[in-house]
Amino acid sequence: MQSSLRLGLAGLGTVGASVIRLLNTHADILSLRCGRPIVLRGVAARDRTRDRGIDLSHVNWFQDPVKLAESPDIDVFVELIGGSSGPAEASVRAALNAGKHVVTANKALLARHGVELAALAEKRGVSLNFEAAVAGGIPIIKTLREALAGNQVKRVYGILNGTCNYILTRMEREKLSFETCLKAAQDLGYAEADPTFDIGGFDTAHKLALLTSLAFGSEINVDAIMINGITGITLADIEAADELGYKIKLLGIAEITETGIEQRVHPTMVPKASAIARIDGVLNAVAVDADFVGELILVGPGAGGNATASSVVSDIADVARGTALSAMMGRPAGHMVPYRKNDVGRLQSGYYVRLSVYDRPGALAAIATRMAERGISLESIVQRSRAPRADAPDVSNRSNPQPVILITYETSEAAMNEALDLIHRDGNVSEAPHFIRIEQL
Amino acid sequence: MQSSLRLGLAGLGTVGASVIRLLNTHADILSLRCGRPIVLRGVAARDRTRDRGIDLSHVNWFQDPVKLAESPDIDVFVELIGGSSGPAEASVRAALNAGKHVVTANKALLARHGVELAALAEKRGVSLNFEAAVAGGIPIIKTLREALAGNQVKRVYGILNGTCNYILTRMEREKLSFETCLKAAQDLGYAEADPTFDIGGFDTAHKLALLTSLAFGSEINVDAIMINGITGITLADIEAADELGYKIKLLGIAEITETGIEQRVHPTMVPKASAIARIDGVLNAVAVDADFVGELILVGPGAGGNATASSVVSDIADVARGTALSAMMGRPAGHMVPYRKNDVGRLQSGYYVRLSVYDRPGALAAIATRMAERGISLESIVQRSRAPRADAPDVSNRSNPQPVILITYETSEAAMNEALDLIHRDGNVSEAPHFIRIEQL
Repeated sequence: MQSSLRLGLAGLGTVGASVIRLLNTHADILSLRCGRPIVLRGVAARDRTRDRGIDLSHVNWFQDPVKLAESPDIDVFVELIGGSSGPAEASVRAALNAGKHVVTANKALLARHGVELAALAEKRGVSLNFEAAVAGGIPIIKTLREALAGNQVKRVYGILNGTCNYILTRMEREKLSFETCLKAAQDLGYAEADPTFDIGGFDTAHKLALLTSLAFGSEINVDAIMINGITGITLADIEAADELGYKIKLLGIAEITETGIEQRVHPTMVPKASAIARIDGVLNAVAVDADFVGELILVGPGAGGNATASSVVSDIADVARGTALSAMMGRPAGHMVPYRKNDVGRLQSGYYVRLSVYDRPGALAAIATRMAERGISLESIVQRSRAPRADAPDVSNRSNPQPVILITYETSEAAMNEALDLIHRDGNVSEAPHFIRIEQL
Repeated sequence: MQSSLRLGLAGLGTVGASVIRLLNTHADILSLRCGRPIVLRGVAARDRTRDRGIDLSHVNWFQDPVKLAESPDIDVFVELIGGSSGPAEASVRAALNAGKHVVTANKALLARHGVELAALAEKRGVSLNFEAAVAGGIPIIKTLREALAGNQVKRVYGILNGTCNYILTRMEREKLSFETCLKAAQDLGYAEADPTFDIGGFDTAHKLALLTSLAFGSEINVDAIMINGITGITLADIEAADELGYKIKLLGIAEITETGIEQRVHPTMVPKASAIARIDGVLNAVAVDADFVGELILVGPGAGGNATASSVVSDIADVARGTALSAMMGRPAGHMVPYRKNDVGRLQSGYYVRLSVYDRPGALAAIATRMAERGISLESIVQRSRAPRADAPDVSNRSNPQPVILITYETSEAAMNEALDLIHRDGNVSEAPHFIRIEQL
């Protein structure tokens, strides 16, 4: 048996504590599977006194994660601090520079500095592993960079944020408002006190940026992502989707098109019968369309300490076995293809449009004309009676706008934006039109 | 860049031709991803003249796969001949003995000789890779032996045979008989002229035996599997399942129980709302329950030349990168746990029972009493009127047995077998009772 693999672990939050618990629980089996023991030599965290339910008495304690990263006593630095800069970035750089393998769950750091860090790791002859950074316990990184090595990926998409999916699922199942479900997610610890990062779509975007790069061999570009979160989704949208045979999911989607790469994060209406529509609650799912294998879908827990720890330890086991990839993104960092952005205006999809239309003669006709002028065909126009609801505010003092829902056939984003802009300016609607893309996944 | 990885490929059927096409199509990207070119140096197949749509003019041709396996001109032997013995076994042994890495899609060979071949590979310091042997393009081998290295697996189950799933799906969707759908599967090339291996559940069993061993670290034991195929499934069963809120799927299921490992292949009624119920047509799906990650489900094409080639090339890429596992089953062959078989009689599940009951006073009461004597609680008893069907044989000359369906609460297999045996012997039924297990997956 080879010598032990010695770990230093920085960040003792939920995931960090779960990783240590896993390493303790399965020490024997990991040793057997990896051909060598895996031992925790040092930890770094701010608060030493907090009870985390794990015994750390035999482990060296570091105040400064950089010092731990540089310690001659470790072979692998496990970064679970989080954040795209600060101590996480400093310690990962220090570890790589000191010739240590790195395992991280830090999507924000990699979305910002991934290619540069990959180059640094290669230069130092160590591996940079990040299975836990995307979709929690789902082995999508291993699948993309190893299992699909013989494929050209055409599209990757998925539900990458359990918080948003939890909120949308509860809204749909229990006919609750967005605000009520967000509060429930916060009470259950699924959403942060400041939920912007999740519900604004930014967390999904960071993960998508990494998947895109792995899928297409392109440089990581989170700034190129069109991002719409779920804050604008109302119960009325969910109910209308249901009636039309759709569910609303926050998807991250990356595709190779003729003019470049398209990356977007937005609420999406997907047919109820599709596989992705059936992923409910805090689950995540990632679908990959590739030229030889066809479509693969991986479903599993997207968050949670234990599930994420499973991915962290998968990376550690690869290092212990000597089978961790030397190229972080599945190809040498010097061979990442420069990012070429698709013109989003060219993006084609169907649209669900919710309008608040003044109840006056010719209003609907004017709206339909604006659509027609931009070459947009309407599949249906539904004027919804504003039935009084128990939880609805009293509407008796309002003016008379009525909700109208339009479903369009496939059209370009550019045409849709122009048409909606004109409709808004024509003054037949009481507020800016609200739309959701429809994808036939 | 390192020197080329040189392949010898034996067996030029659908998968073999797809592998060569993939290697040609993606030669550049594979070279970039693996850090070295992958080149085909020799092939072995019986018929040299057949047009396979691939250019083999620059490749050495071997009549005897053993000669190819031993050729000093190759580093990796790719076995796509099939069969648990004969040339497949001989050539794989020869390759390992000659110190060549092996990539194989041969589930039958590994189900019979896997542990022994794993030991041989270890002894020779080469890897034995078999991603394509289970569930076609789905990376379930990599997931179990690498991604879940930090988990104790509790259960693995799935739809592992696309032919059976195609037949069951068509029966359900189009209300067709088993025979009609089998014929359709044969016409489409999904089923062999002799379909026994698929519809009898044996193909599923071979795959399950490999998953079981990977999941639990136990020796491969295909003989311990309880196997029921789908030949006994009638349209009446499918329709009754539908009314009761279930679908019928042929599942392979392996579980760790207190008394040992339980492996079984049988038609299973699964709730319509379950993830596994929604896998239709030729798709495969594998679900893994493990202690840290929770449940993962992988869905994808379970067969087909290109999808299977994707898995074969994934293994080849691992070898090219130097990241193929040295332990075929994820742990040293000498440390596989001896197989301890669960007592199947202890197996608990609900049951769907279809009886053909003579229409006479006291018959149903006698049947219910037999169940009660064995401690089996009935959830429901449905006497189905035998409505005449267009495709049903004329029943006017028959005696008067009526179809009766019983749904039981969870009970042991032993109790169920005893009760059904007594019911049959009591003479109130015109034929042996037919049952399907119900699993709340």
